[in-house]
Amino acid sequence: MEKKYRVGVLGATGAVGQRFLELLKNHPWFIVTALGASERSAGKKYGDVVNWKVSAAVPEEAASLLVMECRADLFIGLVDIVFSGLDSSVAGSVEADFASRGIPVFSNAKNHRMDADVPILIPVINADHLSIVRSQPTFKDKGGFIVTNANCASTGLSIALKPIHERFGIHEVFMATCQAISGAGYPGLPSMDILDNCIPFISGEEPKLEEEPAKILGKPSSDGSCIDFAPIAATAMCHRVAVSDGHIVSVSLRLRERPESDDEMVRQVRECLANYKPTQIVQQLPSCPPHCVVVMAQDDRPQPRLDRMAGEGMSTCVGRVRPCPLMDVKMTTLSHNTIIGAAGGSLLNAELAVMEGLIRHNA
Amino acid sequence: MEKKYRVGVLGATGAVGQRFLELLKNHPWFIVTALGASERSAGKKYGDVVNWKVSAAVPEEAASLLVMECRADLFIGLVDIVFSGLDSSVAGSVEADFASRGIPVFSNAKNHRMDADVPILIPVINADHLSIVRSQPTFKDKGGFIVTNANCASTGLSIALKPIHERFGIHEVFMATCQAISGAGYPGLPSMDILDNCIPFISGEEPKLEEEPAKILGKPSSDGSCIDFAPIAATAMCHRVAVSDGHIVSVSLRLRERPESDDEMVRQVRECLANYKPTQIVQQLPSCPPHCVVVMAQDDRPQPRLDRMAGEGMSTCVGRVRPCPLMDVKMTTLSHNTIIGAAGGSLLNAELAVMEGLIRHNA
Amino acid sequence: MEKKYRVGVLGATGAVGQRFLELLKNHPWFIVTALGASERSAGKKYGDVVNWKVSAAVPEEAASLLVMECRADLFIGLVDIVFSGLDSSVAGSVEADFASRGIPVFSNAKNHRMDADVPILIPVINADHLSIVRSQPTFKDKGGFIVTNANCASTGLSIALKPIHERFGIHEVFMATCQAISGAGYPGLPSMDILDNCIPFISGEEPKLEEEPAKILGKPSSDGSCIDFAPIAATAMCHRVAVSDGHIVSVSLRLRERPESDDEMVRQVRECLANYKPTQIVQQLPSCPPHCVVVMAQDDRPQPRLDRMAGEGMSTCVGRVRPCPLMDVKMTTLSHNTIIGAAGGSLLNAELAVMEGLIRHNA
Amino acid sequence: MEKKYRVGVLGATGAVGQRFLELLKNHPWFIVTALGASERSAGKKYGDVVNWKVSAAVPEEAASLLVMECRADLFIGLVDIVFSGLDSSVAGSVEADFASRGIPVFSNAKNHRMDADVPILIPVINADHLSIVRSQPTFKDKGGFIVTNANCASTGLSIALKPIHERFGIHEVFMATCQAISGAGYPGLPSMDILDNCIPFISGEEPKLEEEPAKILGKPSSDGSCIDFAPIAATAMCHRVAVSDGHIVSVSLRLRERPESDDEMVRQVRECLANYKPTQIVQQLPSCPPHCVVVMAQDDRPQPRLDRMAGEGMSTCVGRVRPCPLMDVKMTTLSHNTIIGAAGGSLLNAELAVMEGLIRHNA
Repeated sequence: MEKKYRVGVLGATGAVGQRFLELLKNHPWFIVTALGASERSAGKKYGDVVNWKVSAAVPEEAASLLVMECRADLFIGLVDIVFSGLDSSVAGSVEADFASRGIPVFSNAKNHRMDADVPILIPVINADHLSIVRSQPTFKDKGGFIVTNANCASTGLSIALKPIHERFGIHEVFMATCQAISGAGYPGLPSMDILDNCIPFISGEEPKLEEEPAKILGKPSSDGSCIDFAPIAATAMCHRVAVSDGHIVSVSLRLRERPESDDEMVRQVRECLANYKPTQIVQQLPSCPPHCVVVMAQDDRPQPRLDRMAGEGMSTCVGRVRPCPLMDVKMTTLSHNTIIGAAGGSLLNAELAVMEGLIRHNA
Repeated sequence: MEKKYRVGVLGATGAVGQRFLELLKNHPWFIVTALGASERSAGKKYGDVVNWKVSAAVPEEAASLLVMECRADLFIGLVDIVFSGLDSSVAGSVEADFASRGIPVFSNAKNHRMDADVPILIPVINADHLSIVRSQPTFKDKGGFIVTNANCASTGLSIALKPIHERFGIHEVFMATCQAISGAGYPGLPSMDILDNCIPFISGEEPKLEEEPAKILGKPSSDGSCIDFAPIAATAMCHRVAVSDGHIVSVSLRLRERPESDDEMVRQVRECLANYKPTQIVQQLPSCPPHCVVVMAQDDRPQPRLDRMAGEGMSTCVGRVRPCPLMDVKMTTLSHNTIIGAAGGSLLNAELAVMEGLIRHNA
Repeated sequence: MEKKYRVGVLGATGAVGQRFLELLKNHPWFIVTALGASERSAGKKYGDVVNWKVSAAVPEEAASLLVMECRADLFIGLVDIVFSGLDSSVAGSVEADFASRGIPVFSNAKNHRMDADVPILIPVINADHLSIVRSQPTFKDKGGFIVTNANCASTGLSIALKPIHERFGIHEVFMATCQAISGAGYPGLPSMDILDNCIPFISGEEPKLEEEPAKILGKPSSDGSCIDFAPIAATAMCHRVAVSDGHIVSVSLRLRERPESDDEMVRQVRECLANYKPTQIVQQLPSCPPHCVVVMAQDDRPQPRLDRMAGEGMSTCVGRVRPCPLMDVKMTTLSHNTIIGAAGGSLLNAELAVMEGLIRHNA
Repeated sequence: MEKKYRVGVLGATGAVGQRFLELLKNHPWFIVTALGASERSAGKKYGDVVNWKVSAAVPEEAASLLVMECRADLFIGLVDIVFSGLDSSVAGSVEADFASRGIPVFSNAKNHRMDADVPILIPVINADHLSIVRSQPTFKDKGGFIVTNANCASTGLSIALKPIHERFGIHEVFMATCQAISGAGYPGLPSMDILDNCIPFISGEEPKLEEEPAKILGKPSSDGSCIDFAPIAATAMCHRVAVSDGHIVSVSLRLRERPESDDEMVRQVRECLANYKPTQIVQQLPSCPPHCVVVMAQDDRPQPRLDRMAGEGMSTCVGRVRPCPLMDVKMTTLSHNTIIGAAGGSLLNAELAVMEGLIRHNA
């Protein structure tokens, strides 16, 4: 890349914003040139206002930047794209405003996920969904658009389902999650609520898990303007557990077609997962892991502490593939909720958009 | 009770054995007179060999007892019944031997649970199962018999299912568990395996959860010699989490008959749970809690840390009753795995046996 | 007690306030008649506004009370005393106002601890300090006064030091703490800060630990108007650890007089701790534990999970008494930070005040 | 390096052994050619017997090696040096045997640490200690020798003390530790012992912390045959906490000479720590971190979760430098107990030995 693209990060002081900056450190295509946060932080050096929680030190290139308010007019001319780690209470209108000013937005918020012309993009499984952004009015107008990533738990789940859906067709999905505390942001969950505890409820999470995979595993409509959903019915039971990072989603699947023998079905499911490859273009993206799906043979894997960093947090691990007495096949999936499931996922989305020629060097 | 029954505890130094002694402290009907453990501990004072982990101090009445090997010939004449907290690697034959010598055994081990003439007894829901012990050859011979309790996770689950099964008929059960580390005994799970982690596998647990409820929710056969299983199909996905005590089982149920409206179904399920009462006799047992099932209204309950001690650990808490997009109704259950799910459950079993006239004061 | 004293709880929705209500449930001398919290909760039923975190359910007598703002004029006529679990940001003036209106205040806040005429009262070791409240202007005026308890970590520490100070004289104290998260209140510490972590800093804690024990272990001045501090120099290093309740304070002491032999010194320290008894009057208080100091013989005790509930959370455990290569004697102390170290401590203070005739039934 | 040195790992299946293999992956100077473990594992492929707990997958170069018993005769000809992660119950004689056969041993065990002619080597602070291995009889005989690293908690502590000792002279050290569970090996500490708990005792740890720093901070004797100890008196209080990796040692120091003003003392301590550099040779070792000591300005740092991986686990972090009311200066140190404090430390030791010409390519 001759000249790097200038990127802004919205919600830069938050948990997702910090992870964006960590992942953008030394990125071959992108350079961080602007940071947005609340009015309270605006005008101050990022290194002075952020309560950095990701690693030992704030990345140097970000530390000395002055934080700005998240207003598109302030970012124009400073950035070619923005990543949004904004809270859903403000993300909706702010992101729309950036797009309307011609700035592509790669969002981690839920607000626009179910908009008809906005893809829930996970390049390793649905790179062809990106093209629907061309239907967004802001794209036609000034080249701005919004791309969302999936909910942190939907992401790994959908990646694991994709190869199986392609091969056998998935009809019904039963999901039970054990989700990490970082999914609640910072300060997020009080320690007294989770030490020696497990909370069988995460506000708004079950509906997202039940509706997003059908869109993610769908196909662009014939006119390319939206996504035709996959006919998958789903139910979810979510639990918050005392894990720092890494969401487990244990699933049972009812398949449309399957080998009669349980052994053969399990063998084929494992095989299609292990052999899964994204498109050639996606494989060349800087943040694409060597193995998008890692199939584990041990009885007791995947586990968050041991496996969440597989593929530097960009892989999805799958284990315990076995028959289900009620449906067809059970298995356990694991993915890093703040890397592939959040900031890393958006980063991959932006890389794909670059490759697809959707990003310009703005003046 | 004019004269207390003398009880022995087998596996007294283990995690379940310790919990037995904690619960037997000041029991109105039972007095601990003999303790069995491994050869290594035999001949020594219990207080000197036990690595006590339940509370601040070893109960005084137990501390000074000499530990014996778990051989029935040594216990004869010293006890009227025994509680068994033995590991399944030895429980099978040891328990059978005690029963054959005329000593009723209240076991926490899995070995005899699926024997045709052995009940998996949970007095608050299936007190009528106790009578099948009369079919055990050892009962007819010398009055000895074996009663088992359910797996620690099956127990609370089955209690929560019972009122619903009575009212609507349960056809299929989907279960996902978040289970406490004390379920693995002591030393059990290494700390490095569970700190900042979650393990989606517990050896042998899923089959137990899939097969025990059908027996527990069944009915004594017409000749009273065994249990006719309930026609319930089940699947389970088990997870070990960083919780000290208290197993969560989140379930989805397919019902045989249900109100058409989701709201009405949810209302009726809550109602039948909240109104559930065990038999009159069971309600009078010293260890029976005032509320066998506690229905919780808050979105985020039950939780292990807050709710496991409901009814002094003998109640089962149920919350999050809601419709399921795939089956009929979803809910989350919680029970204390080492009290109602282990030692406390066996204690209740022995209390029922006393009330039913199955226990004698031996010479 | 013919007629119970009516008590109010200020800061009733907070972590300490909840613990007050838990401990006041069925108290033989006190009945809760008024609850104070922030303006936001005022006018609503306590059971509807509190986010109850102590146990399964809100005590019934409190659940239906209407919450009031923490203004003395609203409480007059409704209460004979108040317990204050207020945050230090507001406790100072609110407590002073209650006292000035004739209402005795038993406070858990730090604000008035170092006031000359306010005792830091721990009845089991310094019951004679209570009398200095008679010097408070509000006492002479209308019978109102303020009594504080010690910082949660100072409490157990001071109790453990008292018998040793009486016997040998303590000259210097080195302290290192491992403190529970409940000490930070609720929501308090974010879970992401403490899971798989330890924080070597608690704001404002080290100075409190360094200055409070000298006052607590001091003596009332000859004119009874204040406390002459004990000549003890101290240094503290505080750490927050992933423990729900129970503060460990490991100490090394330089003694003024000591047996020459290390063995004899250790023996005598253990002995004076094990034999320690509070005054006759204090021993009769309803919340006084049978053993104020529990000396443990095992190498690896006390431990929070096993020992914090000794004496229902009102005892202080001491173990690992051993020689120190630099000073004289090292040992580890443990006490429950929200029971004896907070609400339970204040409750004991109020009980002593009743016995000493300082509390009236107000009209 | 034209030709890599062949290395063996003793105790390869244990926690330290696994960390050795993780760190040796792609090492520029060393290649793993032999693995030793217990008789039980001997003859089997490493990948088949190890219960790998460090990361997602066993390093490929190790996975296919056949495990051997830890007998020097089996390793001769296969390795140029060995790293020992053996348990202290067997390390003493096994390591001596390897040295006597001419194989340099870089040990993580405590057995030989206090031998007069064996250095406790920490290259970043006492590289000159290595030379005393020339006094070991086995060195003169066949070139074999033993080098030990320090106890996992002594290591970071000693690194932090070194610059201060050089500048001011340290007279007395007060230490309180909060130590990670990985320090107990695997399976090590049972989870029931540490969840929601803190254990104020680690067997044998306090004596090691009290005696090792004096040797580590000493100087080679005038004849170069042993180490003259530094005149430092020390006392330690150790606590095990629920942290996966990273030992905190909070210390207070009495200095021999110090600036009168507290502010100036603190400034100078910070300065000498921040400016500390190891010798030129050590700085060039592949595993030497860019900053051996990282001084942190924030009140609440260092923290294990955030800071243990500083310098890829080879740096020591120091924070909270402040005056001590009893001694002179207090501060908190943190280092990764299984990297710089164990396997990484030994690796650095071996790298230094290579640079000093003490290692040969054996036939």
